[in-house]
Amino acid sequence: KKAGEDAPPVSIGWDSHQAVEKIPDSLVREGDGPEGNYPMRSKFEKMCREAQISITKAIEDIDGDANFREDCWTRANGGGGMSRVLSGGKVFEKAGVNLSVVYGSMPQEALQAATERGIDRSKGMAPGERVPFFACGLSSVMHPKNPHCPTMHFNYRYFETDGGVWWFGGGTDITPSYVNEEDMKHFHGTYKEVCDKHDPEYYKEFKAWADRYFVIQHRNETRGLGGIFFDDQNDKDPEEHFAFSEECLNSVVKAYGPIIEKHKNDEFTEQEKEWQLMRRGRYVEFNLVYDRGTVFGLKTGGRIESILMSLPETARWEYNHIPEPGTPEYDFIDACKTPREWV
Amino acid sequence: KKAGEDAPPVSIGWDSHQAVEKIPDSLVREGDGPEGNYPMRSKFEKMCREAQISITKAIEDIDGDANFREDCWTRANGGGGMSRVLSGGKVFEKAGVNLSVVYGSMPQEALQAATERGIDRSKGMAPGERVPFFACGLSSVMHPKNPHCPTMHFNYRYFETDGGVWWFGGGTDITPSYVNEEDMKHFHGTYKEVCDKHDPEYYKEFKAWADRYFVIQHRNETRGLGGIFFDDQNDKDPEEHFAFSEECLNSVVKAYGPIIEKHKNDEFTEQEKEWQLMRRGRYVEFNLVYDRGTVFGLKTGGRIESILMSLPETARWEYNHIPEPGTPEYDFIDACKTPREWV
Repeated sequence: KKAGEDAPPVSIGWDSHQAVEKIPDSLVREGDGPEGNYPMRSKFEKMCREAQISITKAIEDIDGDANFREDCWTRANGGGGMSRVLSGGKVFEKAGVNLSVVYGSMPQEALQAATERGIDRSKGMAPGERVPFFACGLSSVMHPKNPHCPTMHFNYRYFETDGGVWWFGGGTDITPSYVNEEDMKHFHGTYKEVCDKHDPEYYKEFKAWADRYFVIQHRNETRGLGGIFFDDQNDKDPEEHFAFSEECLNSVVKAYGPIIEKHKNDEFTEQEKEWQLMRRGRYVEFNLVYDRGTVFGLKTGGRIESILMSLPETARWEYNHIPEPGTPEYDFIDACKTPREWV
Repeated sequence: KKAGEDAPPVSIGWDSHQAVEKIPDSLVREGDGPEGNYPMRSKFEKMCREAQISITKAIEDIDGDANFREDCWTRANGGGGMSRVLSGGKVFEKAGVNLSVVYGSMPQEALQAATERGIDRSKGMAPGERVPFFACGLSSVMHPKNPHCPTMHFNYRYFETDGGVWWFGGGTDITPSYVNEEDMKHFHGTYKEVCDKHDPEYYKEFKAWADRYFVIQHRNETRGLGGIFFDDQNDKDPEEHFAFSEECLNSVVKAYGPIIEKHKNDEFTEQEKEWQLMRRGRYVEFNLVYDRGTVFGLKTGGRIESILMSLPETARWEYNHIPEPGTPEYDFIDACKTPREWV
């Protein structure tokens, strides 16, 4: 079988990433600006960029030592990305926040398969016609060193076809190595509060969605202790969905920061560190086998280093490692086998 | 999306692995013995089991410290496995050799998709009828500690449908962290010699097949420096294919052992060790995203610990790590971008 034979026929400019020296103000095409036909495109990008800057600033403050390094690239057919990566910090082993703007086209069926519920995304298209689309997202994974500090991931994105069909998706979720009930109450509680302000159904629905999505199917375990996850949101005014995404992004530091501050200097044993590295192995398994964004990116010519930024710096696989009942490690696996309610 | 929704509808007894205390002589069903209807089944299994015993003995001798631990399990609908895993050795970080016997059934289309060239495997079947099949294989990955000792993988397998359609597949390939021309001449030369004894076309064809198969497509790099790989072999007398598989298996130690003996005490720097761990990260990427056996096993209820035995104990991902031209690390990547001829 030849390389690429399995890749879906999505065109987003395979291998066309061009590094740029000077970071531009925006990666959206000129006509997609606030005065153009698609004002949400630049509006969403601007919000993501501001969140990227403020979140990385807050993480640098928590780390107190290392700084994010910024890379920027453009694609031949428009769009590109700006990534900020920190590694070898005092508190963080590796942390990345990646802004991505994509102009692509795909068959109508592929577009439907790319979303959760297969809603009709090809309104107004002739049969067989390819769908030109825009996508913009901000995604991040933070891997702290201390095994009592959880890994955190978020991703917020906006999709829009040139035919004007649009939807929002996203979520923030947390992956500790140990169960700390107080931390989970704080993290889930923060997002429940955000959700409740926008829709009384959101937290219940999106918490359950995260528990369903972040599953390592071959182990029948969740990747971590959940959070919120949503996709295909287009049943309200776009400004309402935008406001929700914005508030979710602006709550990342509030939800996550205090947990890291609290545990960044915790003492830990070598055995706890090894357990954390095995949990990171599970993180790698989920991301490479199941995560839709990762697999889609790898197979459609995304920028590899930005996609795999989500992987931990170090991971570990031990043969048949099964925690003893009654240990904190056992309790953690139990919480991954049967998702719990935290608030 | 619910767990398992993407899994192909292959039945091999999902979640039915039952650990057994006493290792049986054979895992094939009684009627598949030497006197039964399918004599190749037990013959191939016996050969694999003997190779497993002799290879693990040789690896223990090379290691000089750690021993393989054996686990055995059976499945509700027949078959099962015997795995031997060594970890924390003096020379080997992790080494596993896994014997697997599977009785399953799958739709005719899935059976064809599972093989390389999509040959008609459903001879004599009514349309829509499921194909009962038998599969037996011995597979192994060895991850030594020293960055100058290569990782080695092999897999030899026999497939047979109850309708009597059969084929052989397999291969042995090597994944160093650095190019050592002499080592590669020895490894490839050993397998060229085996190939040449059986068919003058084999080495050229199977070496190229390995270079095509072991590709990390999203990086456009091979996983390592190749070896031989073949599938769907059924154009000769089954005894001839069997003899070739047997000699390939019996040449594993001859091809690999001397390379490990030569380098197991090599001095190395911390930077060389980190490079090895990054190569292991690539190994994980290949196995979890592209390796047909791994992905098939994970999605059809194989025994997870046996499938993921192939993963290294430790792996590493650094953001955007690109070796400097002129360094040994650069030379290695170059050999992965453009496969070389070694003999």
